[in-house]
Amino acid sequence: MIWNTNLRWRLPVACLLLEVALIALFGVFVRYDMDADHWVQEKVIKNLSTDLENEFYYRYPSFQDVHVMIFVGFGFLMTFLQRYGYSSVGFNFLLAAFGIQWALLMQGWLQSFDGRYILVDLENLINADFCVGSVCVAFGAVLGKVSPVQLLIMTLFQVTLFSINEYILLNLLEVKDSGGSMTIHAFGAYFGLTVAWILYRPNLHHSKERQSSTYHSDLFAMIGTLFLWMYWPSFNSAISNHGDAQHRAVINTYCSLAACVLTSVALSSALHRKGKLDMVHIQNATLAGGVGLGTVAELMVLPFGSLIIGFVCGIVSTLGFVYLTPFLESRLHIQDTCGVHNLHGIPGIIGGIAGAVTASIANIDLYGEEGLAYAFGIERSKLNWSPNTQGRFQAAGLFVSLAMALAGGVIVGVILRLPFWGQAPDENCFEDAVYWEIPKEPKSTALRSEDSSIKPPEP
Amino acid sequence: MIWNTNLRWRLPVACLLLEVALIALFGVFVRYDMDADHWVQEKVIKNLSTDLENEFYYRYPSFQDVHVMIFVGFGFLMTFLQRYGYSSVGFNFLLAAFGIQWALLMQGWLQSFDGRYILVDLENLINADFCVGSVCVAFGAVLGKVSPVQLLIMTLFQVTLFSINEYILLNLLEVKDSGGSMTIHAFGAYFGLTVAWILYRPNLHHSKERQSSTYHSDLFAMIGTLFLWMYWPSFNSAISNHGDAQHRAVINTYCSLAACVLTSVALSSALHRKGKLDMVHIQNATLAGGVGLGTVAELMVLPFGSLIIGFVCGIVSTLGFVYLTPFLESRLHIQDTCGVHNLHGIPGIIGGIAGAVTASIANIDLYGEEGLAYAFGIERSKLNWSPNTQGRFQAAGLFVSLAMALAGGVIVGVILRLPFWGQAPDENCFEDAVYWEIPKEPKSTALRSEDSSIKPPEP
Amino acid sequence: MIWNTNLRWRLPVACLLLEVALIALFGVFVRYDMDADHWVQEKVIKNLSTDLENEFYYRYPSFQDVHVMIFVGFGFLMTFLQRYGYSSVGFNFLLAAFGIQWALLMQGWLQSFDGRYILVDLENLINADFCVGSVCVAFGAVLGKVSPVQLLIMTLFQVTLFSINEYILLNLLEVKDSGGSMTIHAFGAYFGLTVAWILYRPNLHHSKERQSSTYHSDLFAMIGTLFLWMYWPSFNSAISNHGDAQHRAVINTYCSLAACVLTSVALSSALHRKGKLDMVHIQNATLAGGVGLGTVAELMVLPFGSLIIGFVCGIVSTLGFVYLTPFLESRLHIQDTCGVHNLHGIPGIIGGIAGAVTASIANIDLYGEEGLAYAFGIERSKLNWSPNTQGRFQAAGLFVSLAMALAGGVIVGVILRLPFWGQAPDENCFEDAVYWEIPKEPKSTALRSEDSSIKPPEP
Repeated sequence: MIWNTNLRWRLPVACLLLEVALIALFGVFVRYDMDADHWVQEKVIKNLSTDLENEFYYRYPSFQDVHVMIFVGFGFLMTFLQRYGYSSVGFNFLLAAFGIQWALLMQGWLQSFDGRYILVDLENLINADFCVGSVCVAFGAVLGKVSPVQLLIMTLFQVTLFSINEYILLNLLEVKDSGGSMTIHAFGAYFGLTVAWILYRPNLHHSKERQSSTYHSDLFAMIGTLFLWMYWPSFNSAISNHGDAQHRAVINTYCSLAACVLTSVALSSALHRKGKLDMVHIQNATLAGGVGLGTVAELMVLPFGSLIIGFVCGIVSTLGFVYLTPFLESRLHIQDTCGVHNLHGIPGIIGGIAGAVTASIANIDLYGEEGLAYAFGIERSKLNWSPNTQGRFQAAGLFVSLAMALAGGVIVGVILRLPFWGQAPDENCFEDAVYWEIPKEPKSTALRSEDSSIKPPEP
Repeated sequence: MIWNTNLRWRLPVACLLLEVALIALFGVFVRYDMDADHWVQEKVIKNLSTDLENEFYYRYPSFQDVHVMIFVGFGFLMTFLQRYGYSSVGFNFLLAAFGIQWALLMQGWLQSFDGRYILVDLENLINADFCVGSVCVAFGAVLGKVSPVQLLIMTLFQVTLFSINEYILLNLLEVKDSGGSMTIHAFGAYFGLTVAWILYRPNLHHSKERQSSTYHSDLFAMIGTLFLWMYWPSFNSAISNHGDAQHRAVINTYCSLAACVLTSVALSSALHRKGKLDMVHIQNATLAGGVGLGTVAELMVLPFGSLIIGFVCGIVSTLGFVYLTPFLESRLHIQDTCGVHNLHGIPGIIGGIAGAVTASIANIDLYGEEGLAYAFGIERSKLNWSPNTQGRFQAAGLFVSLAMALAGGVIVGVILRLPFWGQAPDENCFEDAVYWEIPKEPKSTALRSEDSSIKPPEP
Repeated sequence: MIWNTNLRWRLPVACLLLEVALIALFGVFVRYDMDADHWVQEKVIKNLSTDLENEFYYRYPSFQDVHVMIFVGFGFLMTFLQRYGYSSVGFNFLLAAFGIQWALLMQGWLQSFDGRYILVDLENLINADFCVGSVCVAFGAVLGKVSPVQLLIMTLFQVTLFSINEYILLNLLEVKDSGGSMTIHAFGAYFGLTVAWILYRPNLHHSKERQSSTYHSDLFAMIGTLFLWMYWPSFNSAISNHGDAQHRAVINTYCSLAACVLTSVALSSALHRKGKLDMVHIQNATLAGGVGLGTVAELMVLPFGSLIIGFVCGIVSTLGFVYLTPFLESRLHIQDTCGVHNLHGIPGIIGGIAGAVTASIANIDLYGEEGLAYAFGIERSKLNWSPNTQGRFQAAGLFVSLAMALAGGVIVGVILRLPFWGQAPDENCFEDAVYWEIPKEPKSTALRSEDSSIKPPEP
């Protein structure tokens, strides 16, 4: 196989063609939804009494937080590799910028189509960010082993599949999944892992040295970790029902994440022969509590229920990094660069199960009669609804997500194996210099405080 | 003394025991407050006409900003040390995640207890973050010299004392302290300094080299500085009264911080023999204006009053770094790693004094009759209230905070001196490798732009 | 010429004199606007029914995002230089902190003066940040070649000119420019480029080595890039009309920026002989879509119109970095350190033109009758208003901004050429050590995982 990593025509052509197609489709299909449109007439019809009731003011702070998570959070989380920082941040930037546009169309056709136009408002932007979040997760599994052209192709397909899967779960099965444990995290992780499995590189040990971190690259990664951790309450509440549901989702996520930090630290130390902490666990496992709480975020799990979910996720995730990732690589031939299986895969499944259980035991004592109907969006006409059915649909949703991820991952993986996407040979994986112009290091890396080349100032 | 820094059992056991205890206590005591609960019935009673009036929408943006300050702000501010970045960010993460849970309980019992349950809403989360902020301040004083087990113990006690002190000030003395000059900053700083005094290490010069920064570690620290500086208006207004008070607190803090930057730069240059600026001052003294404005943030100090406070704090804080910190170490045997005395200690006292003065001169001309009553939360029944009394209570609040900090610091310091908490010997202080698995540096630190190990792409 | 870069007296005196003057002027002129004042009486007059209608809640999230863009966004974007990170972040911090105070006064006198006082509320703070944004842009052109004293002088004059120019555009010509393509970006860029032209240094190649980046300095710069990119929707909507206008400005900016990333990446790869990406383009050109959308942000350009603007800006900006910046330096003697001409200059002009065109074709079909009047702030009395006139005034606004920038830049440039401001000689440009105390690098830069100096913990 001749490895040609020169992207001079492939990448520009891919980007420009995709963008031109997006512009054409936006021109035909996308218009502003009422809250963002100028038509005063329609506002009167909807009887919006004040500007404050514009959806914008309910969602804008959460939207910006989610936006930070996608671009800085995921982007910097992956800079831990010593020579792959440009690609981590830069390719994540590229795929997310493309993905949100395509997601506005795909999710729009399936969920915001009025027969003629896709009507977008802030909630569509949040949903597009969410959809791209699942691509960022999958990117973590294949990080360092694929070219930007492959990433654009993967994004194109994954956004499409995500939107269909989301439509099945939210509109057909009518499951609750406000923070996306199933639709975003489990789907993204298993999709990415399947792609990584198809793209298995038996000689990846040739670039083993570059798969570790350096002191400063781990600090850059902590920027990503912390912005993900801090803004996760916004992630899990961004598209919740207004008022108490949004409020509750924040409290629950806050609690779960806090508990998760303590168990991640505990396990990280306990599993090291000298009791030392491992940055990989602190960067990743501490976030598992946010993933695990995604499905139940706005439900009545109570603060201590959230703590328990975070407690379990921190333990399971750290154990996964220590025992499962090596096993996946050596036995199942799944090379999971960032360990997304431990951060998004298993915690996503835990979240889905927690959702099924929580829905099954929902009752009027906990929610109130009106509250129960409102929480699960039950219409008067659906008389045969019961917590039990809801629980079973929740479980079904989890299985559908996993099935879609595995099937989709196989198809996309096979497409990405085609030899002309500019992928790097095994010995050049995890290396920015393949796709980036890299600055020469200065002759002397040390900055001297008394530099002889600096003219002394006059006294 | 035999130094055993292996935390393999001590840290995991501490984390897991604490978290299990927290879960149990949350299960017994913590429930959602009305604004986060599903009970529609109660909403009707409170007559919430729209979801927008949910406390959530008044406070959520400020909450997220405060959250960023605690985790990224304090965490990265302390990464200036050359070999202690993992611990700065990581231990701050650990203690804050534990502290917010314990603070929800302690502050809850004292202030949000309805006789049976602690009812939490977003304001509790903000207050928990505030409480932990004071622990982060104290952490700055002992940074590099304590083990994570010691930090967990310190957090446990400090959160407890903070909550009691806060209860005395806000509920018994009824002082104003919306940005916490007294309760958070002065308390946290003098508590931490007292602990540092008890833990005095006479041979710390053995690790002197590691107490300085490197070029890049100072840039990481600026991330912390800037997020603290930018979001401080949110900090000082996060729990202010709705409407004009919150609005005013933002304007005042914005002004104070801006003035503080100019005087910090001025003094930093004036105190260097060649007029050069010192990163330590830019990283820290520029923030003193936010600390100094904490108590009076929502009062009618007028924008120029805020500028004056910032002006003074910048000067005093920079002078403190140049003259006071060395004096404290050599004469009083207080080793203040981050100089919290200059950033939180003195400015906190200035803030407390400014609060007493501002309260004393409050009058109807400035506030209006209704405004005065509202600003100081005076109930009709308290007929003997006068600005003068308020001023004296404010001053009393400052003294109580200092007394609690010193007394508490002595007790906690003595506990932390016990020899089995995994602390490092003097020559290994300020060193990540004691508690962290450190990556090996790559053989060649330079990334070569023309790397011979990279196969050239086809032309 | 004798170069004296010792700022020991010049910088402190400048800072302190300016701050004292600001305090005096604030004392005489600045008071709280109604929404931030305690006077309950006036609120009743204005008939504010609830605290939620306080302007604060409409604007606070956007304000904080803009604040982050000014201090972290611009500050870190400029850290790409290998030895100028302290100055990039630190001087940006200094000039912005001074500039916002002076802008509150200048903009206040011209736009918020009630005859006796400048009445400030949150909108003034946002406008002050905007004004300083244009100074940050100009700073990018002269980065590395000027002393902090020169920067303070430049800020003093530029803020003054900005405020006058803004007054002419918004109040006399009544143009729309909510995201400031003309007032902020084009004005700032051409002002800075003119100053750079006057300050031309023919022997700058002596410090050529330091004009490039290092691997980690480019990652720091990406922090700036991403926060600018993510929060740009807040920038363009921060002072839009409430409700749908603010909502629309966010959607438009989001779309434009996403498209811009794809075309920047495409051109960056296409223009490199091996198809490699250049960090300079990713850091800068990806933002051009936000600049280009500034003027039309809240208008009815529709999502696909926004995509087209972003598409064009990404291409033009990247082409500018590759072809125009070298041309400007070699032929026109304009040394544009950060390439602000490509990021703010040309895209700002594109934005101005887009504004003129969009206004010219505004019609009732697109906006509705009420909507059209509201969007352009047309009062009943102005019967002779037409889209065509608006378009011509928009175009006039662009020319006025450019003329003010060039004229102002010449004057300020000449003042800055005076030889006693502490500027560095050509061979010491782009060097922190001139103005900053620089830490000594540790003897061994490598952190060893098995450090012999660390006592092994007991087994």
